[in-house]
Parts: sequence; structure tokens; C-alpha cells
Amino acid sequence: MKKLEAIIRSSKFGAVQESLHEVGVDFFTFYEVKGYGHQRGKNLSYRGAVYDVGYIGRIKLDIIISEEFVEKAQQAIKDAAYTGEKGDGLILITNVENITNIRTGLTNGESINL
Amino acid sequence: MKKLEAIIRSSKFGAVQESLHEVGVDFFTFYEVKGYGHQRGKNLSYRGAVYDVGYIGRIKLDIIISEEFVEKAQQAIKDAAYTGEKGDGLILITNVENITNIRTGLTNGESINL
Amino acid sequence: MKKLEAIIRSSKFGAVQESLHEVGVDFFTFYEVKGYGHQRGKNLSYRGAVYDVGYIGRIKLDIIISEEFVEKAQQAIKDAAYTGEKGDGLILITNVENITNIRTGLTNGESINL
Repeated sequence: MKKLEAIIRSSKFGAVQESLHEVGVDFFTFYEVKGYGHQRGKNLSYRGAVYDVGYIGRIKLDIIISEEFVEKAQQAIKDAAYTGEKGDGLILITNVENITNIRTGLTNGESINL
Repeated sequence: MKKLEAIIRSSKFGAVQESLHEVGVDFFTFYEVKGYGHQRGKNLSYRGAVYDVGYIGRIKLDIIISEEFVEKAQQAIKDAAYTGEKGDGLILITNVENITNIRTGLTNGESINL
Repeated sequence: MKKLEAIIRSSKFGAVQESLHEVGVDFFTFYEVKGYGHQRGKNLSYRGAVYDVGYIGRIKLDIIISEEFVEKAQQAIKDAAYTGEKGDGLILITNVENITNIRTGLTNGESINL
């Protein structure tokens, strides 16, 4: 089993949720995080004012998924979260050694529907 | 060393904390997350009104633990977090390659008491 | 690629950020968490009153990093987050199987600058 973590723009959350739904991924956990990106002196300039890039509010999704869903889910997130501007985010895949469903007691492949 | 992540009902947090204490697990990190579960058209009906399942407030615990504590901690969480209704949550075990205690400088098995 | 997770005192966030910047680590995600440490009867005493240790507000940093940056980043965090009092926190290293940059589509070593 795999854990897919996606750090996306908060504004793209609805689109990502819909895009995941279309590939059959309907269960996940999410929470607000802050993204810090220090541009090493490359401050952003907007209408003559200089802005430090500072912190950007983001949403992190944790999705538990079986191996065969990983590629579909990655693609669904990429399609929906993309703007082309810096800061579109990252998708991470890590291995999960064991999953237990608290209600059913089932583990790993049987613990979830994906 | 292992990382145990438990996503549980917020209402079960106190019981889980007590249950973990009884097996000697007294240190963890936790934070509020949202669980999303789209029931694919199976909306819940309550007194004639139909509800989308939507988001459910949950608590996520991150527990760093040595291998021999994993089973005890899993069982303690399952016992305390169980209601039998859908949405009781999941317990994940992942491998941690290295742990460093910032105060003591000790690593891995010596970095924590568990 | 590796994921470095650091759980630090909230009061040390600025120092850790600066210390990471000095070793070239300028991108990360962070969020507030709570640390629970039950001192098994060893309540803290302060001016005659007994306090349960209870929950402590902390900040968790998630840093995605290539292998050669891990040691530098660990050291930078340890140096800046250390007070010598219990509760200075932990640094965890876990393996990440795959990283995708949503904007560029690049993966793994090419997905980030570190």
C-alpha cells in the first residue's frame, strides 16, 4: 500500500477533489499547511512594490491507495492542480508497511476500497 | 523505528490517549485534520432530509515507536477508537530511517523511550 | 529522495528557518501541531503549584530533500532548535519513493532544487 501526499494551492482544492473523484478516489484526509519559499533575494515586484514571497496557504492531502491507483491519482492531481506558475506544489509517494481499518479490523489491501 | 499514524474520530481522542497510556505510550504529536468521504450518490438520510457526507473533523496522531511497541499500540488504538460505524479511521505503519533527539543528540532506539 | 520531518518548539521556528537558509534549504511546508507528553506522575512543580505537562504547541516542518542535504539540514535544525530542556523535539528521516513537481512535471532529483 502507498501513501500519496499532495501539497497544492488552496484555490485548487475543489478541482483536485473532483478530478480524483473521476478516477474513483473518494476518500482522503486533508489539512491546511503553510508553504515557505525564500526566493534568495529575488523578491517579487508588483506595481512598483517589492514583496517577500513569505508563506503561502496550501492544502495537503493524504491519500492511502493501492499500487495500481497511484498513477491515475497522480495524473488526476497534476491535471487539476496545474496553473503553470511557480508554487503549484508537489506529489509524494511513500511506502506504507501496514494499514489497519479500525472498524473492520482488516489490514492492507482489504482495509480500504482502493 | 516506526511511525504509527492514526486517524481517529475527534470524540475518541481522550479514550485513545488513555488506552495508549495503559500500554506505556505517553508521547505523541497530534493535530486536527478533515476526512473526506464521498459516498458516490449514497447520501445519508436523517429524519427525511438527505445529507452529503462531506467533511468530518478528525484527529491524527503521529507516534514514533520501536518495533516491539507497534502491535500493542495498534491494539490500544483499535480498542479505544472503535464504534462500529463507518468512519472509525485507519492506523498506518511506516518505516523511519533515522530519528534524532534534538536535546540529547541521541539517534534511533536511544532517541526516545519507546 | 528523503523527507525530513522536524517537530520543534514554536518559539524556535524563526531561528530554524534562518539556520536552514544558511545551508541552502529554502523551501518547506510547516504547520502547527500539539505535542503530548504525559510524565507518568512526574508532574512539574512551579512555585508550589503542580502542573500536568499536558499539550505543548509545536511546529512541524516537512522538508523534501536529496540525500546529500540530509546531514546539513539535520545539523542546522539541531543547532537552532536546541535549548537543553526536555521537549526540544525530534528530527525524522523517511524515504520517499517518488516526487513529482506539479508545474514542471519533473520527478525525483529534478523535481526540486535540493
